[in-house]
Amino acid sequence: VSKSDAATKEIVTRGVIEIVPEQEFVDVLRSGRKLRLKLGLDPSKPDLHIGHAVLLRKLRLLQDMGHQVVLIVGDWTAQIGDPSGQSVQRPMLTADEVKANAETYMRQFFHVVDRDKTEVRWQSEWFGGFTLADVVRLAARFTVAQMLQREDFRQRFEAHQPLGIHELLYPLLQAYDSVAVQSDVEFGGSDQLFNMLVGRELQQEMGQRPQIVFTMRLLTGTDGAQKMSKSTGNTIDLEDPPGEKYGKVMSIPDSALMDYLELATDVGDEELAYIRKQLEERSVNPMEIKKRLAREIVAMFHGEAAAREAEAAFERVIQRGGTPGEDEVTVFPFSFSRQYKALGDNRFKMAPILVDAGLAGSMSDARRLIDQGAVELMVGQGNIRIGEPIWQLRSGDTLRVGKHRFLRIVDADRETKTS
Amino acid sequence: VSKSDAATKEIVTRGVIEIVPEQEFVDVLRSGRKLRLKLGLDPSKPDLHIGHAVLLRKLRLLQDMGHQVVLIVGDWTAQIGDPSGQSVQRPMLTADEVKANAETYMRQFFHVVDRDKTEVRWQSEWFGGFTLADVVRLAARFTVAQMLQREDFRQRFEAHQPLGIHELLYPLLQAYDSVAVQSDVEFGGSDQLFNMLVGRELQQEMGQRPQIVFTMRLLTGTDGAQKMSKSTGNTIDLEDPPGEKYGKVMSIPDSALMDYLELATDVGDEELAYIRKQLEERSVNPMEIKKRLAREIVAMFHGEAAAREAEAAFERVIQRGGTPGEDEVTVFPFSFSRQYKALGDNRFKMAPILVDAGLAGSMSDARRLIDQGAVELMVGQGNIRIGEPIWQLRSGDTLRVGKHRFLRIVDADRETKTS
Repeated sequence: VSKSDAATKEIVTRGVIEIVPEQEFVDVLRSGRKLRLKLGLDPSKPDLHIGHAVLLRKLRLLQDMGHQVVLIVGDWTAQIGDPSGQSVQRPMLTADEVKANAETYMRQFFHVVDRDKTEVRWQSEWFGGFTLADVVRLAARFTVAQMLQREDFRQRFEAHQPLGIHELLYPLLQAYDSVAVQSDVEFGGSDQLFNMLVGRELQQEMGQRPQIVFTMRLLTGTDGAQKMSKSTGNTIDLEDPPGEKYGKVMSIPDSALMDYLELATDVGDEELAYIRKQLEERSVNPMEIKKRLAREIVAMFHGEAAAREAEAAFERVIQRGGTPGEDEVTVFPFSFSRQYKALGDNRFKMAPILVDAGLAGSMSDARRLIDQGAVELMVGQGNIRIGEPIWQLRSGDTLRVGKHRFLRIVDADRETKTS
Repeated sequence: VSKSDAATKEIVTRGVIEIVPEQEFVDVLRSGRKLRLKLGLDPSKPDLHIGHAVLLRKLRLLQDMGHQVVLIVGDWTAQIGDPSGQSVQRPMLTADEVKANAETYMRQFFHVVDRDKTEVRWQSEWFGGFTLADVVRLAARFTVAQMLQREDFRQRFEAHQPLGIHELLYPLLQAYDSVAVQSDVEFGGSDQLFNMLVGRELQQEMGQRPQIVFTMRLLTGTDGAQKMSKSTGNTIDLEDPPGEKYGKVMSIPDSALMDYLELATDVGDEELAYIRKQLEERSVNPMEIKKRLAREIVAMFHGEAAAREAEAAFERVIQRGGTPGEDEVTVFPFSFSRQYKALGDNRFKMAPILVDAGLAGSMSDARRLIDQGAVELMVGQGNIRIGEPIWQLRSGDTLRVGKHRFLRIVDADRETKTS
């Protein structure tokens, strides 16, 4: 097996669920033709985490081979949102919000993807001038039955749950994006397979070379169970500081180790096989592998020195029971007198504070953390478990949330008075 | 029963299949509120016949009571047509064709409907500026399941026949017309019931008073069997000359007599009941009733004198075997040397000539007329039956088609030379 064949094999397997059609992709990769690699950006979800990085690193790898990334900002769809208002995941955004979110997204995106080999296109370039006639002509190319082949559509239709007519239009719009940018390959999660194949079909109908479709695996969250997502609060964000990235990686269950190594690092396939064997034979302490994983991930985004430093801090605070360094603590100032409605004697409902500080994904997550005793007040050598939904806080209190995360409470009123 | 009650009763029953909701219509009629009566004009079908007149006369009656007709020219839909190209009934028209057809339609329309109490609106007023966002918001108001309640949609969907996504949009567009013109009552055939009810629902959703829906009966064609339509060639056109109208009415079967009297004349309900009784008891010759019907119809469009004249001509030519007057003959000039490819000795295929002269609705209709011996060459006292598909013609020949229609063949080449 030549070096180039091995590289090709890694491209078509690592983190990949399916390539349609795979042989065509292999052939076109060997042909040396420069490919346009399409990825859609949803401006309603501006935060990137290492779950996304799997896909971004695939794009970067292909860029380094000379291919062109085309990033499509879904500004038009985001501004329309889901007019039925049934889906929380598709809120309507103003033009300013879309712009701000897209900038946030791209700032993170270009930590991994090469900006110089990326063409950024805004959906409104082509949809802004779309007329009713354009919509009708586009809609005429597909039948109701074709759209109802999409699993979630069919299930809802058959279960007599409402399926809006506009929802049938969205896959067509995403498909039209592929036509507008003359996409050669589109990337997405497995939930995008249907829409991407509609793009392939539409391109063919409109006389273009049909795009190849690339579905990528999704990394599980730090809980090792659910999909990594902001709403579940189980993400490792691209912009988390090094210590937080390190700590979050250390919190994943051992069962998720191999997946993280395969999808989130550049550790080679051969070495992966070796590590898997070691873990199966129990000839290595999983904690050591996890530290290697955490180092790899921190180093990828912040460099080797930051990785070593994060590891040292982790060993000091967590493994040897020391106090966290100032850089490992999230500082969360709020007005004791005006925010969170103190219930007398500075007693606060804890759940909304944990959510707003970014330590819980939702109110129910926050309540679960409290119920499970995972929130503690750090006092000298021992910690006090905060098992109650309401707790008395003092400015300067440090809370420990889970094993590896620390929150410093600051009364913004006092800060203002003293400064 | 007061006179006004009787008038209301006639409005809500004569020619009516269904009013949804009927009581609401009766109440609003009594309230004295001025109503906006919506009717859609399909510019791909510019020819009006007395089958349409049933509906037009209902509009006229309501206008005379003070209400306002809103005629919507479907110019936008006609220009888009059916992009799937599957339906012959929805050809795509140019803007010029739409304009010309709409003018033809309106010229006929205003033979019956009062022009001064009619507001003409063009669909493109509101759809010309429709954006993709407008379409998505409109589409979001209805579900796929709702649209599949339409009988023809459901049948095609269940039979696995293609149902284009754009086809689900058309009822929404027609519904939006109702919103745009703030329709109070919409009129249409029974095939329009679903679309009109969608309009009612959309108006309600968009905060308007929902329109009342009026489905009207369709008059059968002169064959007494099929729906009156140009494609079947069984129409009595609003612009047919008096003699032709009279003759066509006389050709309907006796079984269609009562329907024609009810739907196409103003003969009162009481008198209708009396005639029905006479016919059932065979105490009257149906031919006499038919002549009354023909007189009524001709008089409605051309006045009493024209009606008497048409009757006299009919009696002379048809009933007593005379020759037709010049005004009863359709003159059809064509170039013997360049049109219809003469097959030697001025022998012509007869079917296309009958179609183009307007005496047959289609080639198959024309062939059937010939096969049945319904086409004759008039020569002096006796006629020669043209039973062959190909026939030798001379300029000046008069053909009799069916009982009551006459066609004069003219060689346009000779006309040109002599003039």
